[in-house]
Amino acid sequence: MLRTHTCEELRIKDVNKKVILAGWVQKIRELGHLTFIDLRDRYGITQITLSTDINPNLLEQAHTIQREYVVQITGTVRERENKNPHLSTGDIEIMAENIKTLNPSHTPPFTIEDNTDGGEELRMKYRYLDLRRNPLKNNLILRHKLALETRKYLDSLNFLEIETPFLIKSTPEGARDFIAPSRMNPGTFYALPQSPQTFKQILMVAGYDRYFQIVRCFRDEDLRADRQPEFTQIDCEMCFVEREDILQTFEGLIKHLFKAVKNIDLPVFQRITYEQAMNDYGSDKPDLRFDMKFVHLTEILKNKGLSVFDTAEIIIGIKVKNQATATRKQIDEWTEFAKSPKIGASGLVYIKYNEDGSIKSSVDKFFTEEQLRTALHAAHSQKGDILLILAGEKIKTLRRMGQFRLYLADYLKCIPQDISACLWVLDFPLFEYDEEEQRWVSMHHPFTSPIGDLSGNIAGLKANAYDMVINGSEVGGGSIRIHNKPIQKKVFELLGLTEEEAMKQFGFLMNAFEYGAPPHGGIAFGLDRLTAIMCNTDTIRDVIAFPKNNAGKDIMIDAPSEVSDKQLEELGLVFKASLNSKN
Amino acid sequence: MLRTHTCEELRIKDVNKKVILAGWVQKIRELGHLTFIDLRDRYGITQITLSTDINPNLLEQAHTIQREYVVQITGTVRERENKNPHLSTGDIEIMAENIKTLNPSHTPPFTIEDNTDGGEELRMKYRYLDLRRNPLKNNLILRHKLALETRKYLDSLNFLEIETPFLIKSTPEGARDFIAPSRMNPGTFYALPQSPQTFKQILMVAGYDRYFQIVRCFRDEDLRADRQPEFTQIDCEMCFVEREDILQTFEGLIKHLFKAVKNIDLPVFQRITYEQAMNDYGSDKPDLRFDMKFVHLTEILKNKGLSVFDTAEIIIGIKVKNQATATRKQIDEWTEFAKSPKIGASGLVYIKYNEDGSIKSSVDKFFTEEQLRTALHAAHSQKGDILLILAGEKIKTLRRMGQFRLYLADYLKCIPQDISACLWVLDFPLFEYDEEEQRWVSMHHPFTSPIGDLSGNIAGLKANAYDMVINGSEVGGGSIRIHNKPIQKKVFELLGLTEEEAMKQFGFLMNAFEYGAPPHGGIAFGLDRLTAIMCNTDTIRDVIAFPKNNAGKDIMIDAPSEVSDKQLEELGLVFKASLNSKN
Repeated sequence: MLRTHTCEELRIKDVNKKVILAGWVQKIRELGHLTFIDLRDRYGITQITLSTDINPNLLEQAHTIQREYVVQITGTVRERENKNPHLSTGDIEIMAENIKTLNPSHTPPFTIEDNTDGGEELRMKYRYLDLRRNPLKNNLILRHKLALETRKYLDSLNFLEIETPFLIKSTPEGARDFIAPSRMNPGTFYALPQSPQTFKQILMVAGYDRYFQIVRCFRDEDLRADRQPEFTQIDCEMCFVEREDILQTFEGLIKHLFKAVKNIDLPVFQRITYEQAMNDYGSDKPDLRFDMKFVHLTEILKNKGLSVFDTAEIIIGIKVKNQATATRKQIDEWTEFAKSPKIGASGLVYIKYNEDGSIKSSVDKFFTEEQLRTALHAAHSQKGDILLILAGEKIKTLRRMGQFRLYLADYLKCIPQDISACLWVLDFPLFEYDEEEQRWVSMHHPFTSPIGDLSGNIAGLKANAYDMVINGSEVGGGSIRIHNKPIQKKVFELLGLTEEEAMKQFGFLMNAFEYGAPPHGGIAFGLDRLTAIMCNTDTIRDVIAFPKNNAGKDIMIDAPSEVSDKQLEELGLVFKASLNSKN
Repeated sequence: MLRTHTCEELRIKDVNKKVILAGWVQKIRELGHLTFIDLRDRYGITQITLSTDINPNLLEQAHTIQREYVVQITGTVRERENKNPHLSTGDIEIMAENIKTLNPSHTPPFTIEDNTDGGEELRMKYRYLDLRRNPLKNNLILRHKLALETRKYLDSLNFLEIETPFLIKSTPEGARDFIAPSRMNPGTFYALPQSPQTFKQILMVAGYDRYFQIVRCFRDEDLRADRQPEFTQIDCEMCFVEREDILQTFEGLIKHLFKAVKNIDLPVFQRITYEQAMNDYGSDKPDLRFDMKFVHLTEILKNKGLSVFDTAEIIIGIKVKNQATATRKQIDEWTEFAKSPKIGASGLVYIKYNEDGSIKSSVDKFFTEEQLRTALHAAHSQKGDILLILAGEKIKTLRRMGQFRLYLADYLKCIPQDISACLWVLDFPLFEYDEEEQRWVSMHHPFTSPIGDLSGNIAGLKANAYDMVINGSEVGGGSIRIHNKPIQKKVFELLGLTEEEAMKQFGFLMNAFEYGAPPHGGIAFGLDRLTAIMCNTDTIRDVIAFPKNNAGKDIMIDAPSEVSDKQLEELGLVFKASLNSKN
């Protein structure tokens, strides 16, 4: 037996017990004829005391020991003279009788402390050292609990966790697939799943009633900030349900998780349509931890002589409380951000409602005071508030104001960090126009059921889809699915697939719909994002044990990397680049 | 709301309740002015009764409904006149007031019954129909429970489930990897993990103390019977442990699973060394549900004049109880099997100890009766028993007898189906000689710790490794790991890797060993096999929702398949075959 207790286990009741502990040396302090070691493991820290009184050799031995050495201590539990109330084991110490180095350690390239001095790249390379730090360790422990509580909750509701395959078929619809060549079937590839979507629908056709899976998914996309090529979903599907059944069930899941893991009671989730979210917050995932709802000012301020307003499709403002005192410099800074390429507005207009009741605006000469007061009134402004205004093309201006709203809330530090604003966004459009591909694409995916039938203007079709948003992040999304072949065929047709293409890619699903497919629907949560929100961290890299960097590389193990010629030979593959160089 | 209850929920106490049920039509019977429908869902079956008394249109409507239609029934619960004690809902029926077809069904290509008439290929293509059958459904439900109970048990022992990456680095040591080309890093590949071995060891170095993961693994091997290219492991690792800690912990896990899922109390697991297992049963995964332990007869029967014995390295027998009455025809059949290419013995010798006390043997003329009686005595034979004997080269003969033992037990139907024989096999050789590759390879994997040091004859080195065997299947295996760089380097050297190759492939792990790596060890269970054993099925395809066939294909979705030229173009890849055809 290498240890009798962990480094977090011993208490005052254990005094006089003979124990063996093992762990890492967090700290060593020498004080004359005493040496103190803070011994650390995953569970906690226990103070080890070496004294010349007990064994004169011990201190000499301790000289050879350094930070992060793995040592085994044999000794007796003793009550401390100077107790440490910040440590759960702070009432006791171990009087060491023996100390054994189980494995030495080089000096770590950065400090193993809550706030480390290591740069990102260095910490990724020595991930095993970075993972020793409390913030990462606590995140991974929370992630473990989150996954387990998810499973317990869904099991209690008769959901079955069923594993679906990772080696599947590539389908061009959607994001780009990772593919893996098949050696046994030369010339063909498996694809790694972007989600188990079609399999979970097949399981509904097979009558499994309630399915879930916590499952890895893959997308070969250029990595934007905080995206990973592999990510984890809580993937769920139910049959014989309508939208309301799903919203209730999964609002319940998230409430359970916040309660079980963070002891937080969430209130009933708000519900808002996609259209309302866009009109009020310029986003389909509004952050409702703070207000700053848009004020629509088009009728009040258009056609009054200011040309940027008069030519605008829409004029919208946000009222900011108590910021009439904003300096010229601050307003310039905000304006600059609004005009930056990231936002792309042509300018920012303000109307200040000063504390003394007077009004000051950047467009005073184009409007009467009454017109400006009407605008302030529409925004329910009070003395001391400021109204900030953007104008232009409708959709673009809404999105710009949405981003500006987030910027400003962050700038003014008015986003409360201790609340979680959870909501459902409903009634998404079924399709959106992809400017790059010059065609209509599914806003969620092609298996989403329309609300009503598929006649009428394609832009106006609504989907029976829903997203769950927490603190401005989309943590989950889903829909009631199509479960009959003619509607599914029609959707593929609207997406521009020929019948042949549709059948080749999704024929198995459409055929399954002809053998007694029940009405069904589901949802998938991003576990990485959900965990990051519950851990109060901005980056999902902090909640993944071994993340890739922004170039899709794991720099600890050095992947991806070259493979042997023999491996390529067996797969019958050649790199074009190597062909050219050989010619 | 599409239903108020499932098809397994209603009981006599619910009589007179107005309910809505939805499900699949299992059976329709027409009896004059009554029609009965057995309505099925995942949970059970409820009888629906349609009567002309209630609604004359109902029976006409029911005429259009067929097997596997999805229907919704509105009606009232009523006590049945003819109760069905075999059905949990057998005391009641639903008097239908309304019936609605939610989705029709083509006639299934095979019957959805416990024993179906569908062939394997057809059932794979229509997997969603095959999965509706009770045997497969019950297997997947058991698998769900098994996974959940595993998680609960390990969580209760402070294990953390931590996800490791799927896009990793290819390492030629071990089986063949599946690889996925990286678009962002042209010329390089990710590999799919054969197991999370190095990552779990890194987590031990990072101090996570107790790790587990139920995780998909991949091996691109030619598929022998009942192998899948993707399979699921219960992967576990602990630090500050010795072998005994691991055996106790995971014997506990398996006992817990049998109790929780099957309500079976397993006795303490037997322990046997690799050497003993080979000597006594000719296998490193002996099936101990039955006896037939080998009797070593070399000293008794060698050099007595029978040349096949006199030239043999080893002579072994198995005693079979009460088979002295075996006919000539039976013995010929056994002999034929022993001589078949699968076994490869040169012949089979028998000694019968007849009920009347006389002896009859196939080699009477080469031995005195006393010699034969000594052999029978060594096998503790009693009147009525038969002793069957093979002779030859040591290892080959042990293995042959091992296979013959399994054949004979199956032939004689003496393998009890209602017990589970669990054991640990210990002290494996560290290396074994690979005839094909003409070099020494690791018997488990190169991270396995040796028992003692690495000096001495390579063939004689023992590993601190252990396998768990149930009913003759290896369900799990693991080892205490190497945790220091010099020993790890030495093992790679013995495996024939240059220092450069070793560092290129496993440098990150060996470097990690220099930053305070704790002693650690672990185990991995094959979840597919374990589930199959607990489901009493011979093939793991019956416990996997969407298995591949023996050619590695998913014939329902048609994977693997060709990908578009654009996809290959983006990856910079060409197939050699297509190059040649273009030239």
